[in-house]
This record gives sequence, C-alpha cells and structure tokens, in this order.
Amino acid sequence: MRYELYYWPSIQGRGEFVRLALEDAGADYVDIARGREEDGMGVAALMRLLEPGGAESHPPFAPPFLRAEGRLIGQTANILHFLGPRLGLAPRDEADRCWAHQVQLTIADLVGEAHDTHHPIGSGLYYDEQRPEAARRAADFTGNRLPKYLGWFENVLARNPDSSEWAIGGEPSYVDLSLFQVVAGLRYAFPRAMEGLEPAHPRLVALHQRVARRPRLAAYLASPRRIPFNESGIFRHYPELDA
Amino acid sequence: MRYELYYWPSIQGRGEFVRLALEDAGADYVDIARGREEDGMGVAALMRLLEPGGAESHPPFAPPFLRAEGRLIGQTANILHFLGPRLGLAPRDEADRCWAHQVQLTIADLVGEAHDTHHPIGSGLYYDEQRPEAARRAADFTGNRLPKYLGWFENVLARNPDSSEWAIGGEPSYVDLSLFQVVAGLRYAFPRAMEGLEPAHPRLVALHQRVARRPRLAAYLASPRRIPFNESGIFRHYPELDA
Repeated sequence: MRYELYYWPSIQGRGEFVRLALEDAGADYVDIARGREEDGMGVAALMRLLEPGGAESHPPFAPPFLRAEGRLIGQTANILHFLGPRLGLAPRDEADRCWAHQVQLTIADLVGEAHDTHHPIGSGLYYDEQRPEAARRAADFTGNRLPKYLGWFENVLARNPDSSEWAIGGEPSYVDLSLFQVVAGLRYAFPRAMEGLEPAHPRLVALHQRVARRPRLAAYLASPRRIPFNESGIFRHYPELDA
Repeated sequence: MRYELYYWPSIQGRGEFVRLALEDAGADYVDIARGREEDGMGVAALMRLLEPGGAESHPPFAPPFLRAEGRLIGQTANILHFLGPRLGLAPRDEADRCWAHQVQLTIADLVGEAHDTHHPIGSGLYYDEQRPEAARRAADFTGNRLPKYLGWFENVLARNPDSSEWAIGGEPSYVDLSLFQVVAGLRYAFPRAMEGLEPAHPRLVALHQRVARRPRLAAYLASPRRIPFNESGIFRHYPELDA
C-alpha cells in the first residue's frame, strides 16, 4: 500500500502535518508534487486534480490531499483522521478518536490564524500589499489568540487521564506530532512571543522535545525531505510581526 | 436520549449548523444557553464548561459543543460527523461519510472566511475598529474566494453519481442542511454579490430551496427558535462590504 500525498513541493505548510505522520510511521509514500514531471508527478500532477473539469467524483478544494485505497481524501485533519488508525497513530477507542480529531481541528484553526497574521486581507495578495494590516493582526494574534490556544493545548495535556507524556490516550498519536509542528512553526515565526509564552506551558514544550527524539522522526527532521521553514509557508518569520 | 447543545443564545453562528441537523431530524434536544439560569442553564452553564479549571477531561476550545452519551464534543464539523449517523443524516458507507466530512470542513473554512470579512484584524475587536481593513478583505472575499467556494460546491453537486438532488450519496444529509445555511447566510450578508453569482450555480440554489421545503425544517425556520440573522453573528449585513 503506497500512499500518494499531494502538496506544494517547496513549503511545509499544511501538508507537513501529514508528512510527519507518514514519516513517523515509516509508511511507504510518495510526495507527488516533489517528483519529476517526466514521471507523471510534479506540481502539474497536483494541479490536474484541482481542475474543475477533471474526472474525480470527490475533487479536493485545495491541497493537501491523499490518494489511498482508491480514494482521494482532502482536508488535513480529515486525512489524519483517516490515516491515524492505519498508521498506528490513533487511539483505539472511538470516543478518543473523536477527541483526537477535535484537538486536531483546533490545531487547524490555530494554523489558519497563524497564516492570516501575514495575510489578513487576501491569500491571493502578497505580504507587501497588506503589511500595515498584518502588523495589527499579528499583534492581536500574539497578544490574545496565541496565549489562548497554547493554554488550551497545555490543558489538554494536563487532563489526559491515561498519560503524562502524550496528548490522547496512553500512546503517541498524530495529535502529538501536530503539536510538535505547531511549536516548531511558532518558534520559527514568533521567537520573541514564544520566548515569553513557553515557560507557562511546560507540558507542551516537553512534548515538542519528546516527539523530536522519536527515532524515525529525528531521522526525517535531519534529512533533505524536511523542507526548511521559509517565507512562502504558513509559519513565516517577519520580525516586524513578532514585536 | 436528550442532546444538550451549547452555543451563544442570540446568534445563529456556527451553532446553527448543529441546530439545523437536530431540527430536521426532530431530535430531542435542549439549547442550553437559551434556557433559564434558575434552571441551571443560560450562558453561565456554557461559560462554566469553558473555564480552564473545570472538571471536564475533554474541555472544548469554543462553542458550539454538544453533550451526548456522556461525552462532550466540540468543533462544528466534528459534532455533525458524530450526530449524522445517529440522526439518519449521514450516508451509510464509510467512504461517503469521510467525503461528507471533507465537504463540511470546507464549508467551515468558508464560514471562517465570511466571519473574517468583518473581523480581519481581531475577533476580540469591534467591527468599527477594523472597518477599512474589513472593506479590503470583503472585496477579496466576494471577488475571489466566494466564487471559488461556490464553484466547488456546485461541482460537488454536479458530480454526485448517486443523486441529482443531494450532495452526498442518494439521501439527504447534514451537508445539504449546511449548504442551505451557507446560501441563506450569504444572501443575508452579501445580497448584491450573491445576485451576481447565483445564476452560475443553479444546483446550489435549487438545493437551498429543496432543503427549505423539508417539513420539519420549514416549521423550524418559521418558528421563534430560528434566531434571525443579525450583526452579532457570522453572516452580517454591512452594505459597505457588499460593493
């Protein structure tokens, strides 16, 4: 069973949450848009599946999406909800799976708000076309929204009755990998804000380190497959937005 | 089995997507925050469950959330994913349920963007504190994002191999109810933009009408339980944002 992941080839973005799960599980997968066009891959292969006139009965709205078991599945949290049990990265219990998904959807909300700090007016415009607005939105984000999200994640970790190490149930899940990515991305984009916030969120900080040390994940993070953070992705470092 | 819905009592907002499913199914439910504080309900009952120091092991990040079967479930699309099969408003097939959820998550993205047309800078600020930014964001929304979303929904309807009437599979589902709500909300908030866009999306417009005529839903819409659209909710009518 080879999974086909479709996502932009030059950024971590939302696709990274799926890559982390596939990598941590040692799954057999192809990052299609990073392949060669001569081999039927590349960005062209991704774009073909987004065309309104295509043949797919379940056309995705936007990347990332996953081809698996003859299906085409979109929306990051939905992909992880599908993949989690197959990769051994989801709790066994149905109620816990629902809770894991709820936490993942809240992570998705935070990711959307982090994106909008540099694109508060329009995702199709350049950052330079919305810098004053971005400065205002980023101040609200780091001052109000980010503390609220981090406090909630810390609370999720504190209240897990089954583990003091992992977010959901007694074993690591895709939610832990995603919380690692959130911390990594926020540290890249907002180092000053995070320096101030991290001491109040020790469980989340420890989780980040615990995940980073998982052998397959550590190998991935040190490999060229891990695209560096950059100013085309979701988490961008613009010092003026990290006041 | 009585469901307890927790959502702000004076707006449709995100809670309305859950209300529509409960109402269409004729489910036994209580809209807790609309109840009386003397009876242990009201907004205070909602706020108690959002407090960081509360006793819940699965604390929600924000309303809406649902108490059912001894569980507390948050995130609108997740609530519907849970409720759909129980209310007879989800497809039977697992792959179709995953697809329904994917469409619902894309609806959630649209709802978030519709909200941000009047709150592009901060959800904790007043509209009056972000009017120039709102005008810019709304122009991008109605000019670029809204046509993209509506085109995708139309495409979802056009490609359903099992029905020319409903979005997913051969029977009505919570996705149809949510698409109804999207059209209703957009018509309220952006009547001029929608007037221009609707002719190109006949399936979506017909679906809105088809849903509105379902007997239990029609009774609900005509009842005082349906809170009118207003300028505190997600879909707000500010004529200057509908240029």
